[in-house]
Amino acid sequence: MKVQPPKGMRDLLPREQALRDTVQRTILETYRAAGFRRISTPLLEDIENLDKSDGGDNLNLIFRVLKRGEKLKAALGSGAQEADLTDMGLRYDLTVPLCRYYAAHQAELPNPFKVIQTDRCYRAERPQKGRLREFVQCDIDILGDPSLNAEVELIDVTARALLALGFTDFTVNVNDRRILRAMLKNMGFGEDQLDTVCISYDKLDKIGADGVCEELRQKGCTVQAVAEMESFLRQGNFTPLAVAARLQNDALCADLEYVLSTAQRVAADRYSLAYAPSLVRGQGYYTGIVFEITCPQFSGAIAGGGRYDNMVGKFTGKPTPAVGFSIGFERVCSILAQRSGAFTDARPRLALLYGPQDDFAGVLQKAQDLRADYDVTILAEAKKRGKQLAALEADGYAAAAFADRQELKILGSRTT
Amino acid sequence: MKVQPPKGMRDLLPREQALRDTVQRTILETYRAAGFRRISTPLLEDIENLDKSDGGDNLNLIFRVLKRGEKLKAALGSGAQEADLTDMGLRYDLTVPLCRYYAAHQAELPNPFKVIQTDRCYRAERPQKGRLREFVQCDIDILGDPSLNAEVELIDVTARALLALGFTDFTVNVNDRRILRAMLKNMGFGEDQLDTVCISYDKLDKIGADGVCEELRQKGCTVQAVAEMESFLRQGNFTPLAVAARLQNDALCADLEYVLSTAQRVAADRYSLAYAPSLVRGQGYYTGIVFEITCPQFSGAIAGGGRYDNMVGKFTGKPTPAVGFSIGFERVCSILAQRSGAFTDARPRLALLYGPQDDFAGVLQKAQDLRADYDVTILAEAKKRGKQLAALEADGYAAAAFADRQELKILGSRTT
Repeated sequence: MKVQPPKGMRDLLPREQALRDTVQRTILETYRAAGFRRISTPLLEDIENLDKSDGGDNLNLIFRVLKRGEKLKAALGSGAQEADLTDMGLRYDLTVPLCRYYAAHQAELPNPFKVIQTDRCYRAERPQKGRLREFVQCDIDILGDPSLNAEVELIDVTARALLALGFTDFTVNVNDRRILRAMLKNMGFGEDQLDTVCISYDKLDKIGADGVCEELRQKGCTVQAVAEMESFLRQGNFTPLAVAARLQNDALCADLEYVLSTAQRVAADRYSLAYAPSLVRGQGYYTGIVFEITCPQFSGAIAGGGRYDNMVGKFTGKPTPAVGFSIGFERVCSILAQRSGAFTDARPRLALLYGPQDDFAGVLQKAQDLRADYDVTILAEAKKRGKQLAALEADGYAAAAFADRQELKILGSRTT
Repeated sequence: MKVQPPKGMRDLLPREQALRDTVQRTILETYRAAGFRRISTPLLEDIENLDKSDGGDNLNLIFRVLKRGEKLKAALGSGAQEADLTDMGLRYDLTVPLCRYYAAHQAELPNPFKVIQTDRCYRAERPQKGRLREFVQCDIDILGDPSLNAEVELIDVTARALLALGFTDFTVNVNDRRILRAMLKNMGFGEDQLDTVCISYDKLDKIGADGVCEELRQKGCTVQAVAEMESFLRQGNFTPLAVAARLQNDALCADLEYVLSTAQRVAADRYSLAYAPSLVRGQGYYTGIVFEITCPQFSGAIAGGGRYDNMVGKFTGKPTPAVGFSIGFERVCSILAQRSGAFTDARPRLALLYGPQDDFAGVLQKAQDLRADYDVTILAEAKKRGKQLAALEADGYAAAAFADRQELKILGSRTT
């Protein structure tokens, strides 16, 4: 039997789980106060739904579930290929399931639908530091609101959650994919290439200008368009002015300007807004404004999202405006875990020690009485009491009590 | 694209999720107050760990995950069989992962280890009413305590959680598998058959005496032993005396008597304890006392568990005493959902309506001010205000406010 969890997946120790529970509770309280309501969907989705979604590179990272029983036998009998063998897959994000959910339950849901999801997702990433194959995302989405106020509200509410967690010096980076696409068309990329060009461009931070251009060449883009892109990337220093100069669409620029300026007024001096002309976000399904939040403690984004107006329509046949913002729960927790001073709302812990002479029903009653003030763990007395108390103190117990007397022993000042 | 979730799995509407969140919070508060600490493990386990576990019929219900990349190609190239194609599976319970976890992290964990798990499990059951393929379990376990007080404590703490949820008229049924096994040996079943005989016997409620005996014949038990079993089952009315008469082991009966009488004193008149000689529990891994909780509102058990002293040793090579109690979260939630009066700790909800003339940054600020007393949802004003307010009331909003004036409109008495 193997004792380690599967590659790229984690067991959580009690102190790690306590932090995560506190972080999740804090985020949920903020989101619920803002009138968003939580739902959940199965971790498994029909494999065709996943394969046909616009997930970009994520589509290569799906864990697929084997068919069962007669259907598996039939598939194996006829010279099985991968596609014949599976009927479900583990979701790679919470957005694809949300669109399916909305299509199935729209009649029972309010319009607009302001929704919370916080749950596990799966990607068969090549294992490396900080890349998990099982991870939690915390999403809020607004479905059915075409106005830019939906974007502004999601920025406000997501930022409030991060502020409640103690983050202060973060930046909300905003771009509009429509501006980006117009710019790429001006460079000479074909309409049908824009999605895939965006996906390559999004990797600028990871693979650099050379890497982006090499990918574009491999994807069959014209020499001329790649040369235009290369000259744009080489110029560096992407200012709004530099990008605007390549466009002639005031309405698009006005949308971006509205979101940036309104969100900045809401933010006041609590956090920053910034225009990020190179921001794409990996998923193919975004159609308009995209955003992500960066902070000095982490090299990547700690939250990201955007508008995806075409995704729900894939299920319903009817376009539905939609915009979402997702907090990278794993990243947020790993940053908070490194802070001095535990981020936790746990009560102080007390150990109630009992011996073989004590009536256990009485011990349980005494424990319950002490629970007004403490989380109380019942433990058998060890032979070496001093050693046991030292171990309890090291494990973070605030106090010890004894079944056969009134005394309460305070154990140092540690409370984690 | 398919809009329904996979067979046997459920989407949760906001009101269903709100109930579940309240139930989970209530259970976790009770368990944490009792000094248990939450952990979590990945949903996926190495497929060999699952296949080699003593899961009884559950081993036939595992969802298996397809290998990926070169390993899949190699398996497909060489005339693939099911076993070659998969490397991981979705867990069918939380106990097998817990034993692996304990083996991996024992050095960092206290002894005894009192642990909470609440998370999703998967079984590829034939879809039928009330049988889900994805379901949540809420477990507490004590690892490292060989004493019967561990059983008594788990009964007390699990019962407290159910009481906190408003359950009152439930019964904790207790048996000891060692007594059962001794009785079966007396009937003439072979030592190596006892596990599988127990699994069949556990189905007595579902398939009746005829079904149990038929299964035993199919499993190759001797005619004589099956006849003994049949005569025992036909006699009905299984009293402690009737079973004790078939045994000659006072120590075993004393263990059962200690757990029953101590737990009964703790229960006082809040719930009942009962000896249940036919109680087995499905899993093969239980070694001693087993228990389950029944209530008049549901035909099956709403919680179950027992001692499994050999399971951790499969991972560590060293036997470790262990006992656990699992609440059937889905069943508990479905019973509570049918009660009159919602079981929820949600705050009242208010809709803040705004028009195109309102400054949205100001709207967000007004919403935040109202959040001291309400969960506040920001919504664009509809053209027909009366119809919009009626819809909000029907959706459970307690009040409406307006961006451009002080008025607060109370919407009936519904708060769900």
